[in-house]
Amino acid sequence: MSFSVKILGCGSALPMVKRFATAQIFEHNSHLFLIDCAEATQVQMMRYGVRLGMLNHIFISHLHGDHFFGIFGLLSSFSLMGRTADLHIFADIGLQNMLEAETSPVKLDELGFKVLFHSLNHKNPELIFENKSITVTSFPLRHRVPVCGFLFKEKVLQRNIIKDCIEKYNISIADIVRIKNGNDYVCNDGKVIPNTDLTIDPPKPVSYAFVTDTRYREDIVDIIKGCDLLYHEATYENALLTRAKETFHCTAGQAATIAKKAGVGKLIIGHYSGRYKDASLLEKQAREIFPLSYAVDDGDVFEVKSLKK
Amino acid sequence: MSFSVKILGCGSALPMVKRFATAQIFEHNSHLFLIDCAEATQVQMMRYGVRLGMLNHIFISHLHGDHFFGIFGLLSSFSLMGRTADLHIFADIGLQNMLEAETSPVKLDELGFKVLFHSLNHKNPELIFENKSITVTSFPLRHRVPVCGFLFKEKVLQRNIIKDCIEKYNISIADIVRIKNGNDYVCNDGKVIPNTDLTIDPPKPVSYAFVTDTRYREDIVDIIKGCDLLYHEATYENALLTRAKETFHCTAGQAATIAKKAGVGKLIIGHYSGRYKDASLLEKQAREIFPLSYAVDDGDVFEVKSLKK
Repeated sequence: MSFSVKILGCGSALPMVKRFATAQIFEHNSHLFLIDCAEATQVQMMRYGVRLGMLNHIFISHLHGDHFFGIFGLLSSFSLMGRTADLHIFADIGLQNMLEAETSPVKLDELGFKVLFHSLNHKNPELIFENKSITVTSFPLRHRVPVCGFLFKEKVLQRNIIKDCIEKYNISIADIVRIKNGNDYVCNDGKVIPNTDLTIDPPKPVSYAFVTDTRYREDIVDIIKGCDLLYHEATYENALLTRAKETFHCTAGQAATIAKKAGVGKLIIGHYSGRYKDASLLEKQAREIFPLSYAVDDGDVFEVKSLKK
Repeated sequence: MSFSVKILGCGSALPMVKRFATAQIFEHNSHLFLIDCAEATQVQMMRYGVRLGMLNHIFISHLHGDHFFGIFGLLSSFSLMGRTADLHIFADIGLQNMLEAETSPVKLDELGFKVLFHSLNHKNPELIFENKSITVTSFPLRHRVPVCGFLFKEKVLQRNIIKDCIEKYNISIADIVRIKNGNDYVCNDGKVIPNTDLTIDPPKPVSYAFVTDTRYREDIVDIIKGCDLLYHEATYENALLTRAKETFHCTAGQAATIAKKAGVGKLIIGHYSGRYKDASLLEKQAREIFPLSYAVDDGDVFEVKSLKK
């Protein structure tokens, strides 16, 4: 099981040479999901060894340029590379309108693959994607334009069967599947072996919450409660609280307060204002409230291990 | 007098980590002109020390993404930085339509400065810009979409007055201006001093031609004849001539042939296909035809000196 987040860009509106604007790769068991797609995200993917061809799902939090201007180049490059697989984009309806317009920067009907749009719900949390092992839920934040955060959550895994039991009771493959799903086993002689004697708990499912750009919103605490890893924007230092409010952003302290209230495993912060040449002050301020806080840099990878219970 | 070209990106459609797509800064006496604006051009400007605030004129050769996708981020950043000065964009009318559309990625009326569009003439060469010291002429090339090259040309400068003469003949400021413009000087006693005795030739005006993306077009030779520096795309090696024709691009040999026929001072090539990890083969092939050929890298600067006659 792998569950990791790779930071492709941790800057805010004004990109910097060593801090591109927002984009992240969430990876789960070799499935890649792109979260936001700022200008030059495709270059950052190349720089940090992300295989573009592996990407089928893109989640765009909101339609400010520093979160989506890279979509044009990425779509064009997919086309040049001969992509044929469908590409799913979860975003505000405005992105679909933009890309389907006569004046779109890229012509969808010339790409050679289908782009399937999924419009985000800006009023309520909503399950927007699931495969056999994870779910993705969007939830509204509060910014100057409609914006959503995303919660990536592993599904509860099947129980692990104890190998020795298979031989001991001569269990068939069909029964193994039943046992993994939590059933007891009935031997040929009618004896019932309880599931707890046959299996051990599966790894605890892990989760990742992505929160940017937003004003301080305590109502997201319930949604992201107990998640293992939280990325929360921290555009400003604590002293600039008024500026943060005015621009619908958060301070490092506010990000950490959300992390603390939600009881997350670890907090990573980003989306720093260009005024911070390095983010150590923001990290320090976050740690004063939530010690397990880390200021990210482009290229950082955070792995969330599936811990045994 | 300074006259230089800074390469911000020398790649072609698929950007690479060390080779961004096309953008160049042409600088003349502290006036900056951006030629093409691929994705992340603003980052490349920062990386190579170009002051964004100094830029008032942008020339876009054609509307393929690897030549203009950076315009959205650049306009947004100008706005964030509080720009108020007018910005002139010379491009295919399609760019204006795109940016003025309801679904535009950037809202022109929210930028805080005016964007003035100048539509390119794709049928004939046309003087599209001039200030007191240079002219810019567009000229049609041939690609899969309408495309123009650009010729940046210094105006003929005023003659240099010999300082000793000013004292010797006690020449007034008004007369100095007249003499610099080529007039003879009439002394108080009626004696006529011919201009050639009072002045020396000004530096020879220099010129730069930018040619991308295009099929081999010999009819541009007359337009760029004798220019001091020529940038000509060389997407492919000579062996891929058929591929070059099919995709409406040129080989290194074709670029050099144009340089030779036009008798330019120096040829710089770029827009290499992503298949070339380094451009030494292309440079070698160009030099076989035109020895003063150079394959550019991102960040390279080519200064064209004003040579005395």
